[in-house]
Amino acid sequence: MIVIGERINGMFKVIKEAIVNNDKKPVQDMALKQIEAGATMLDINVGPTSAEPEKTMAWLVEAVQEVTDMTLSIDSPKFPVMQAGLEACKNKKLINSTTGKDEDLSRFMPLAVEHDADIIGLTIDENGVPNSAEGRSEIALKILAVAMESGVDPTRLFIDPIVLPVKADQKSPGFVLEAIKQFTMLCDPHPHIVVGLSNLSQTAIDRKIINRTFLAMGIANGLDAAIIDPLDTELMDAMITAELLMNKTIYSDSFLKAYRSM
Amino acid sequence: MIVIGERINGMFKVIKEAIVNNDKKPVQDMALKQIEAGATMLDINVGPTSAEPEKTMAWLVEAVQEVTDMTLSIDSPKFPVMQAGLEACKNKKLINSTTGKDEDLSRFMPLAVEHDADIIGLTIDENGVPNSAEGRSEIALKILAVAMESGVDPTRLFIDPIVLPVKADQKSPGFVLEAIKQFTMLCDPHPHIVVGLSNLSQTAIDRKIINRTFLAMGIANGLDAAIIDPLDTELMDAMITAELLMNKTIYSDSFLKAYRSM
Repeated sequence: MIVIGERINGMFKVIKEAIVNNDKKPVQDMALKQIEAGATMLDINVGPTSAEPEKTMAWLVEAVQEVTDMTLSIDSPKFPVMQAGLEACKNKKLINSTTGKDEDLSRFMPLAVEHDADIIGLTIDENGVPNSAEGRSEIALKILAVAMESGVDPTRLFIDPIVLPVKADQKSPGFVLEAIKQFTMLCDPHPHIVVGLSNLSQTAIDRKIINRTFLAMGIANGLDAAIIDPLDTELMDAMITAELLMNKTIYSDSFLKAYRSM
Repeated sequence: MIVIGERINGMFKVIKEAIVNNDKKPVQDMALKQIEAGATMLDINVGPTSAEPEKTMAWLVEAVQEVTDMTLSIDSPKFPVMQAGLEACKNKKLINSTTGKDEDLSRFMPLAVEHDADIIGLTIDENGVPNSAEGRSEIALKILAVAMESGVDPTRLFIDPIVLPVKADQKSPGFVLEAIKQFTMLCDPHPHIVVGLSNLSQTAIDRKIINRTFLAMGIANGLDAAIIDPLDTELMDAMITAELLMNKTIYSDSFLKAYRSM
């Protein structure tokens, strides 16, 4: 499982303050804490409030790569911010993300090639997020086709079926699970399949159990990557157990501990 | 979700002692506790040690139906014990279980018709438990065919793909998940799909997280019944959440409590 740690994001208070104070330490600490907890990539997002997002993105990337050579997921819908992050990044990198809109695909795919980066494609296009699994697969196929034309290998592409809040749309988690299954049949080997998990439980009260239950269900259907909070121990336990049950890791009586000491 | 409470079983000390002491009270208390916790059927199993299993089965059934009219799952591989349980049972009943062996099918299916009982069919035959999803589906199809020939409606049949301990066979949980998916395509409407969950974590240390993670994964694939311990609160929480995410129940901020007050 590819675990993309979501905690370096300007929407979190500790990161926001670090940005304002020009203090790398809290950002670097958060990077190391997430790695310790099992993250295998680190998401970097300037958050909603940055006045100079390009500068902030570059600063965050530089801060984090001083303490780790882990792959960084440069997270912004804005092209100039993405460019600034990729240019600053000496580590391996993931573009998070393009949509399936022609305008985005035509800019972001060449950027992935230029920077030798992996890339996430969200199954949303000019008409929004489809209200079905099939609609999501259709956009996924379009993203895959453009990726291949652009010279991005399918194994470097991550398709994200877009998880919506269960509270707002109770049918969508089922559509996403079905879409995940369909994505595994797009090509062989198929692209990675990723979700931004936390969105599922937006404004719900029992957020954590919703997140971890869905993560296990997604893994059962073929999900192999997720943008999550690796500091949520029970979430990580559910993920580790689901992977074990899918025979992705080897059983030992202390399999939860064993995973964390890898 | 059909929740078949597993706690009335002579292998548990409290039930074993009740049987030995001819004391109905602990059996009836356990029935009521499981119902309170969300069981929708109650499994009745004399356990491995009973000297007179037919008599014990009848006694357990009579004890339980004094306090509830819930469906009872008469649980024995032995034909005379099954007969004794069914004859004693005035409630709705479930035969737990027949295998896919010719010898068993030819006796148990007519018994289901005679007693107007639902019936569980285990996907094991003369050659044992298949080492694949497809092998399980093949036996499921045979069980379904014999059920229909015998006059048992598919909606009264429960197919059990047989969960083996992950510790003993790490490929089998994946085969079971794939088999569940295949069972949903056997016919329309398809038979219920049930697992005896606890077997999955036999002799493992972190039993509960293994059980509840797999239950959510099974529900994602179409599982609609399980023989479980409803007194395991975290297991029930995972089940309730998985059903919510499959849009089987309606979201409310207090969905965990709401389920239990139904």
